[in-house]
Amino acid sequence: MTDTNLALTLFQQKDLRLVETPIPEPREGEVQLSVRSVGICGSDISYWQHGRIGKQVVTNPKIMGHEPSAVVSKLGPGVTRFKVGDRVAVEPLNPCGKCSLCKAGHYNVCVDLKYLSTPPTNGCLCRYFCHPASFVHRLPDDVSFDEGALVQPLAVALHACERGEITIGNYVFVAGAGPMGLMAVLVAKARGASKVCVSDVVQSRLDFIKTIGADETVLVGMEEDPKVTSQRVIEALGQEVHVAIECSGQQNAVSTAIYCTRPTGKVVLVGLGKDTVEVPLVSAILKQLDILGMVRFSNNYDTAIEAISSGKINVKRLITHRYSLNEAVAAFNAALNREGAKIIIDCNKATD
Amino acid sequence: MTDTNLALTLFQQKDLRLVETPIPEPREGEVQLSVRSVGICGSDISYWQHGRIGKQVVTNPKIMGHEPSAVVSKLGPGVTRFKVGDRVAVEPLNPCGKCSLCKAGHYNVCVDLKYLSTPPTNGCLCRYFCHPASFVHRLPDDVSFDEGALVQPLAVALHACERGEITIGNYVFVAGAGPMGLMAVLVAKARGASKVCVSDVVQSRLDFIKTIGADETVLVGMEEDPKVTSQRVIEALGQEVHVAIECSGQQNAVSTAIYCTRPTGKVVLVGLGKDTVEVPLVSAILKQLDILGMVRFSNNYDTAIEAISSGKINVKRLITHRYSLNEAVAAFNAALNREGAKIIIDCNKATD
Amino acid sequence: MTDTNLALTLFQQKDLRLVETPIPEPREGEVQLSVRSVGICGSDISYWQHGRIGKQVVTNPKIMGHEPSAVVSKLGPGVTRFKVGDRVAVEPLNPCGKCSLCKAGHYNVCVDLKYLSTPPTNGCLCRYFCHPASFVHRLPDDVSFDEGALVQPLAVALHACERGEITIGNYVFVAGAGPMGLMAVLVAKARGASKVCVSDVVQSRLDFIKTIGADETVLVGMEEDPKVTSQRVIEALGQEVHVAIECSGQQNAVSTAIYCTRPTGKVVLVGLGKDTVEVPLVSAILKQLDILGMVRFSNNYDTAIEAISSGKINVKRLITHRYSLNEAVAAFNAALNREGAKIIIDCNKATD
Amino acid sequence: MTDTNLALTLFQQKDLRLVETPIPEPREGEVQLSVRSVGICGSDISYWQHGRIGKQVVTNPKIMGHEPSAVVSKLGPGVTRFKVGDRVAVEPLNPCGKCSLCKAGHYNVCVDLKYLSTPPTNGCLCRYFCHPASFVHRLPDDVSFDEGALVQPLAVALHACERGEITIGNYVFVAGAGPMGLMAVLVAKARGASKVCVSDVVQSRLDFIKTIGADETVLVGMEEDPKVTSQRVIEALGQEVHVAIECSGQQNAVSTAIYCTRPTGKVVLVGLGKDTVEVPLVSAILKQLDILGMVRFSNNYDTAIEAISSGKINVKRLITHRYSLNEAVAAFNAALNREGAKIIIDCNKATD
Repeated sequence: MTDTNLALTLFQQKDLRLVETPIPEPREGEVQLSVRSVGICGSDISYWQHGRIGKQVVTNPKIMGHEPSAVVSKLGPGVTRFKVGDRVAVEPLNPCGKCSLCKAGHYNVCVDLKYLSTPPTNGCLCRYFCHPASFVHRLPDDVSFDEGALVQPLAVALHACERGEITIGNYVFVAGAGPMGLMAVLVAKARGASKVCVSDVVQSRLDFIKTIGADETVLVGMEEDPKVTSQRVIEALGQEVHVAIECSGQQNAVSTAIYCTRPTGKVVLVGLGKDTVEVPLVSAILKQLDILGMVRFSNNYDTAIEAISSGKINVKRLITHRYSLNEAVAAFNAALNREGAKIIIDCNKATD
Repeated sequence: MTDTNLALTLFQQKDLRLVETPIPEPREGEVQLSVRSVGICGSDISYWQHGRIGKQVVTNPKIMGHEPSAVVSKLGPGVTRFKVGDRVAVEPLNPCGKCSLCKAGHYNVCVDLKYLSTPPTNGCLCRYFCHPASFVHRLPDDVSFDEGALVQPLAVALHACERGEITIGNYVFVAGAGPMGLMAVLVAKARGASKVCVSDVVQSRLDFIKTIGADETVLVGMEEDPKVTSQRVIEALGQEVHVAIECSGQQNAVSTAIYCTRPTGKVVLVGLGKDTVEVPLVSAILKQLDILGMVRFSNNYDTAIEAISSGKINVKRLITHRYSLNEAVAAFNAALNREGAKIIIDCNKATD
Repeated sequence: MTDTNLALTLFQQKDLRLVETPIPEPREGEVQLSVRSVGICGSDISYWQHGRIGKQVVTNPKIMGHEPSAVVSKLGPGVTRFKVGDRVAVEPLNPCGKCSLCKAGHYNVCVDLKYLSTPPTNGCLCRYFCHPASFVHRLPDDVSFDEGALVQPLAVALHACERGEITIGNYVFVAGAGPMGLMAVLVAKARGASKVCVSDVVQSRLDFIKTIGADETVLVGMEEDPKVTSQRVIEALGQEVHVAIECSGQQNAVSTAIYCTRPTGKVVLVGLGKDTVEVPLVSAILKQLDILGMVRFSNNYDTAIEAISSGKINVKRLITHRYSLNEAVAAFNAALNREGAKIIIDCNKATD
Repeated sequence: MTDTNLALTLFQQKDLRLVETPIPEPREGEVQLSVRSVGICGSDISYWQHGRIGKQVVTNPKIMGHEPSAVVSKLGPGVTRFKVGDRVAVEPLNPCGKCSLCKAGHYNVCVDLKYLSTPPTNGCLCRYFCHPASFVHRLPDDVSFDEGALVQPLAVALHACERGEITIGNYVFVAGAGPMGLMAVLVAKARGASKVCVSDVVQSRLDFIKTIGADETVLVGMEEDPKVTSQRVIEALGQEVHVAIECSGQQNAVSTAIYCTRPTGKVVLVGLGKDTVEVPLVSAILKQLDILGMVRFSNNYDTAIEAISSGKINVKRLITHRYSLNEAVAAFNAALNREGAKIIIDCNKATD
């Protein structure tokens, strides 16, 4: 343990640096967390490269990272559910708890939501940060810190497949073989899906996703007509799909998802791309599809931890790269170059 | 009653004529129907003007019309549920009854669906046609033939509002003040919606829809930015909507619906427009909306008849024009010119 | 306004007295409320007469009442959403906000729930009490304090009909014509139910419920076989019901509800009776019914207030008796004698 | 193949005999089926021993059996989807297809439902029977006839777990370790359940069910208080369950299911016992449970066959006994004595 708080900080677009920051003290209802493993997310890369995602703009320096596991290092006033030394995964958000969306269980779309590393909220790529205890989840002994860092993307995939109501016997299309596509395949199969077909524009990603459970893959040409792609998906599976999980944010992939889904099926939109996209809604109407937006997770962390602990879902094999916090900029460059599947930064390596 | 079978027939694009056709005999499980009132639908006009809707092309002459009320005039073999003289509304479709969609209750999207007046199936703008008895519904004495003709569009609106799960206390946006928008307002209010705001590009339609129950209206400029329109809707209602019912098929209206719907809300797509439209899906994702396609109706006829009979929904006031079958082409021209709200053709006027 | 805090206090079974109590000060996130109107609930009478409901036992003196409207009289630290003088209805509960049930939107079944006037939590039949601001709801000017007191039972009925998914065209059976049955009829109709049949063992209650919207009523003999009662309900309505709302807690009424509900229909259990009851579950299984427990309300207050304010639901006509807080014991005796429909105690009458 | 039609026929209570019957000819839309494997169901035994189940009474001789696999041996008029020689599983019912329940997808509760071996409809424990082609399902080559006979009970379990919405991460209680309990465990795990605890009154059944996937078992004493049993279930699992599947039909098991289910959880009732049972509904109300009746299956056959074919669910290991049709009475005696798990009768053994 150190008594400084090195933090990977984005000062502005393309200006990412490790700097020392103060160690924060936990307030009422908070715990102070000594960070262990943190996964890199595509959105981290977007903020770094573009300085913004949609309306969220980096105007002040902010600490990066929102997929942490940690050890509880100090308790704020009123916290009784944890003790110092507890190993935890952290749900990286802080909703108001009082609006009608929060009260109805949809705290992920709380209008006053604070989300780690989304401006102006700081993230967790540092040694210490504080968080409301009610969004901190204890890890069983058989779940490692690296697995704990993957609880966040797994929770997103659980949420996506829950929105799609994927169930036993379903045929499923997943667009995009990146980290979210990988997680979606794992979850779809664990929910009983019969066959999953994944599309991507990079063959090596498709090769990798086959090793973790995809039944079929379709390599998509950059300018390929979505009608063609959808026919290839249908032929690979032998039938239209019950549910499509769109993880790429690409316009063509949304269209493909709509075209390859059977009447009354569901298309879940996870990937964020351009603000507006041109899509075949008439086809969706005539097939009476549900096109379901979804963001983040709500009430999925316990299930995610349970699924990892029980061995139902093996996330470890998604981790292809590991860096220490001191090497964080190199880690981000690896992610930028789309190396491997999931990259972990260890924020507390003894040798840092 | 006559013993010829005059039929309003579309020979090809823009070639619409009344011709004599054979009186069909009912087969096993069918009833022969002496047609009474038939409403004109926007799709009738589209076939007439364009010779097609999407992939459905008029290649052979087909009889128009799919919103009929009728009297049972003859029973086919095996029909016991009806007797000659029964007054009925007719669900204008004939699904296979055997595919997985039919068996699951979604006969409206049966892949082998035959739908009246959709090529190559003939419609009901004639004196006599035959139909499977299981899709014929008896009318109570207190429901007139004209009201019986409105059961079909009411069933579509019931289906739309059911998809949107509109319920007590909801704020609702309806895009388009045509016949479907009118029906949607009636149904939304009958399901307990608090306030309904309707948009259209024609002020007179908005004026009319206010008289049948819309609380607020927004006249939309032809090139108006959907973000602006959605703000106007939100301001008119004092809050974002729980459910939007898109009845216009216009790209801008779909976008407006997405922009003005609150997080976790629902956007129901009823209107058919261009094959592809450019829409703000990122906004729908971040608000976790459900965008719900829907087509026709399934299991809505009994409710529609019940709602009319009990007085819960008053459809009569939507009928602004009436023609005899002999005047059917004039009726279609009135519809083409967007005269009035709902136009009825009486197929059995004594004076025809 | 007074500066003492007279409170109707239950000391033990059958020992109900008005005593002076301290005026409480609002803590962080709380508001202090000057109570206006409070409705009497059947559970208040049960605690008074039996000293307990199920496992909830009165061991220490507790203030009665949990259906309050009020005026905000003081703000605790951190409260910004209200100002002194705001007219409000109070959701009479205080859930933990942190357990998995709270986070999922089911705060009504929070394991650590505190509920006004359920031991050991004090109620609101007094001049002043404090409550978390996040469960206080502003009343529009057109909703009176008496109506504000009825928001609570209306919210219960909204929750019940939401559980039953009552919708347009439904036939509905309501067992019990007491305050909850009355509210259930109002809500069922406002959600579009076609016809509602109500049963009770007291003719005068049935007479009253007809005046507020019940279409049919069935007077039940005390020892009547539920199979007979259910046949009478079915005959009165002309068909089996889609949804039954059981508000009496009586074993025979539960059985009647199961017998008169159509296959795939829903039976909602609102009334609390004996711990165990003998019911025809085989019938429920063979008809594939949903038998749905429900308790209190969650996320129903805004809708309740909206429904009253917009005039969709007229609750005022349920108020048959009014007392001042000084007359509270007399009010409880009237309720014990089942006088009238809804009895209101005005906690702030100038003349008290 | 033989050209007589030996049939296991129940003449009246306890009078079960093999007799020759006519070979039936397929009518319009039907196929003639040469029966292969047929499983014995608990209801077969009940009819044999008691001459009735509930209101269903054996008044005329009827052929037993309703869990068949078969080969298509002849096509009736109008059947095009099959050819002679096709290997099939048979959904043993014939709904009207025209009532509102059938049209809504709930053909399993069709009021005019004919169900194999339910009086007065004959069953399939014979050489040949005829059935509507639309309820016959082709078996892939990798699904054996014995597995084909298990499609029916698997479909029931799929339906039960679908009603309970069992999903990834769920804790599940299954009451009864008979054939239906076994199937329920297989399905619950395939849908992603974390842990399943099964109760029974026979230790050997619990030992067997552990080998097919139950995580925990609880041996229940015949007079054990359901509150005690439920505590044992909760302790075995470490928490209350999300879903309980009641397969025994016993009053105490229903009570146990209610007591051990967490707030907002679901109790699915599959087992049929006494017409009325005494159960703790107040507990179900206060926990806001869904108690869900369910009968047979609807739209579950394709999924069942898919799950067997893909290896997701291994039903073969449930088959502990096999008999030829000639030995059918011996097979029924084995079932009566509760020998083994699932008993198959091979209706077409060469040596018969």
